[in-house]
Amino acid sequence: MIRPIAWTDEGIVLLDQKALPQEERYVTCRTYGEVVDAIRDLTIRGAPAIGVAAAMGIALAMKDRTEEDPEGERSFFGEVCRAFAASRPTAVNLSWAIRRMTRRFEEETGGNPAGAVKALVREALSVFEEDIRINREIGRHGKALIPNGARILTHCNAGALATAGYGTALGVVRAARDEGKELHVYIDETRPVLQGARLTAWEMKKENIPATLITDGMAGSLMARGKVDLVIVGADRIAANGDAANKIGTYPLAVLARENGLPFYVAAPLSTFDPSLPDGSGIPIEERDPGEVRILCGRPVAPEGMDVWNPAFDVTPNRFITAIVTEAGVLRPPFEASIGACFTGPARR
Amino acid sequence: MIRPIAWTDEGIVLLDQKALPQEERYVTCRTYGEVVDAIRDLTIRGAPAIGVAAAMGIALAMKDRTEEDPEGERSFFGEVCRAFAASRPTAVNLSWAIRRMTRRFEEETGGNPAGAVKALVREALSVFEEDIRINREIGRHGKALIPNGARILTHCNAGALATAGYGTALGVVRAARDEGKELHVYIDETRPVLQGARLTAWEMKKENIPATLITDGMAGSLMARGKVDLVIVGADRIAANGDAANKIGTYPLAVLARENGLPFYVAAPLSTFDPSLPDGSGIPIEERDPGEVRILCGRPVAPEGMDVWNPAFDVTPNRFITAIVTEAGVLRPPFEASIGACFTGPARR
Repeated sequence: MIRPIAWTDEGIVLLDQKALPQEERYVTCRTYGEVVDAIRDLTIRGAPAIGVAAAMGIALAMKDRTEEDPEGERSFFGEVCRAFAASRPTAVNLSWAIRRMTRRFEEETGGNPAGAVKALVREALSVFEEDIRINREIGRHGKALIPNGARILTHCNAGALATAGYGTALGVVRAARDEGKELHVYIDETRPVLQGARLTAWEMKKENIPATLITDGMAGSLMARGKVDLVIVGADRIAANGDAANKIGTYPLAVLARENGLPFYVAAPLSTFDPSLPDGSGIPIEERDPGEVRILCGRPVAPEGMDVWNPAFDVTPNRFITAIVTEAGVLRPPFEASIGACFTGPARR
Repeated sequence: MIRPIAWTDEGIVLLDQKALPQEERYVTCRTYGEVVDAIRDLTIRGAPAIGVAAAMGIALAMKDRTEEDPEGERSFFGEVCRAFAASRPTAVNLSWAIRRMTRRFEEETGGNPAGAVKALVREALSVFEEDIRINREIGRHGKALIPNGARILTHCNAGALATAGYGTALGVVRAARDEGKELHVYIDETRPVLQGARLTAWEMKKENIPATLITDGMAGSLMARGKVDLVIVGADRIAANGDAANKIGTYPLAVLARENGLPFYVAAPLSTFDPSLPDGSGIPIEERDPGEVRILCGRPVAPEGMDVWNPAFDVTPNRFITAIVTEAGVLRPPFEASIGACFTGPARR
């Protein structure tokens, strides 16, 4: 099984996603600062995975503290949380994980932050284990959407590597395959960081799921030729109305899917929803280094100093989304109601 | 002025488009086989440019022949034409140029192919010079479509490098700029061969036209944010009903343009039209080496042996096209009629 992140006595061990698929290399983060850097530089990426990394990173930060002053501890804890919150802006799973760790910190410490360490480690491990369980639930609900023989188009990597394991969009694919369905996955390479070509292709090979790699611009043609049955992607933040931020290039797929009469599914845990945002216009979109576009494999491709716009995500309006697959079931339009039902009643975290 | 191709006493000199933008390197083709290879390996590319290259290549092939046997000459001429026709399948400009050279060969030789050489060289130079003139006409007609202050999205390279000089889509941009209009060009990098990042970016820098590079998946987001006023692209083959084959990734732009209420223009000479095809379904789409997708700058990015689909072009249905800019004027829907009018009446070449 693919394990992108693990809590060990030596520190937090990450499968270095920058080195895949050429090299399966693991790095050990011994300080929380190293975890923040690993999130920022995409050693670990994917909304659920960076939520898990932040939870573990916060526990790691508190583990070796010897400070006795409760006020100092509390202030250090806040500093750590702010560092994780600032590491990447779009995925709401980060702030979800931070909120969850903060609540545990507050509950456990009472007057004594030192007592919180064990509880924080336990909480981080729960976040990790729950994420895998949630992904399996997403798979269980989503697999009914995948017909036998389906040709599935996906973008970026919403697989085991993007989560604690198993995956969201690719979790649905795994669950359908495990039921005995024949599938073929088309993978958008997903420029600029090539998570499709590097990570999803690697996962599909590991699982022996037949797959074909295309460039992002080929997806439309593939659909128009009748070679795709459905599109399924992950998400980084979903607003209360179902508008979904995901890797740049997702919105074009959704528009093309509708044009070609194909269902367009989003698979994500409830921790990816931000019910505080009425719609997608409030989702902050990270803009990353122009070098990701200008330089390929260490070699400049564009003219020197070329101006670049490099947003990491786009927002797909809810009207293009056929359904959102969550651990609570398959949510259908109108999403205000179906999403709302997941976040009212007995308080959810 | 940018000159991608020139006829010289030493042979046909090509600006090596594989080396741009890092290096402005020229290669001299001394045999027609070298010209065929240069077309196939994208040293020279762009539908009008490869039409010019084929015309010059045919003249080059015949130039140094000393064969006296007319039948042998005729058979060699046919062999040369077939080699050029087979070099790339989608751009119809190739067969247009071959037809034109063949007609001249037949007219001039009578019983004596040796006498045709001068006429063939003159004809190839005419194809070259006419192409620049035609591009300027396309620019003259098209510039009225470009408002002052326009933010223009383009894909691939339909510039001076794709023609004998000046360009089709970028010829329209040049003409609008030369009228004093303020413009900003957004350039799709155009995977897999990166003609946008490498060639269009280089042309815009040379001309001091403000430009921003994006990956292909970012174009939708740019439109949705209201940062694009129009899309203009070239074409490799246009059917009688206006369906237009162009670089892979064009069709998604057309669908996204309509979704966002933006005009989508195609700029191409009449030599790019194939009135023998009623619609785009008959356009042959070249599929190229999977290595173009799997390997970036010499480094493999996808897992070894990864299956790849690599079509070089897609077809944009006519209903997404606002207008087609040609040397005969701006053609509007219904395209069957407006295109038909260009190819009936006094016989055109």
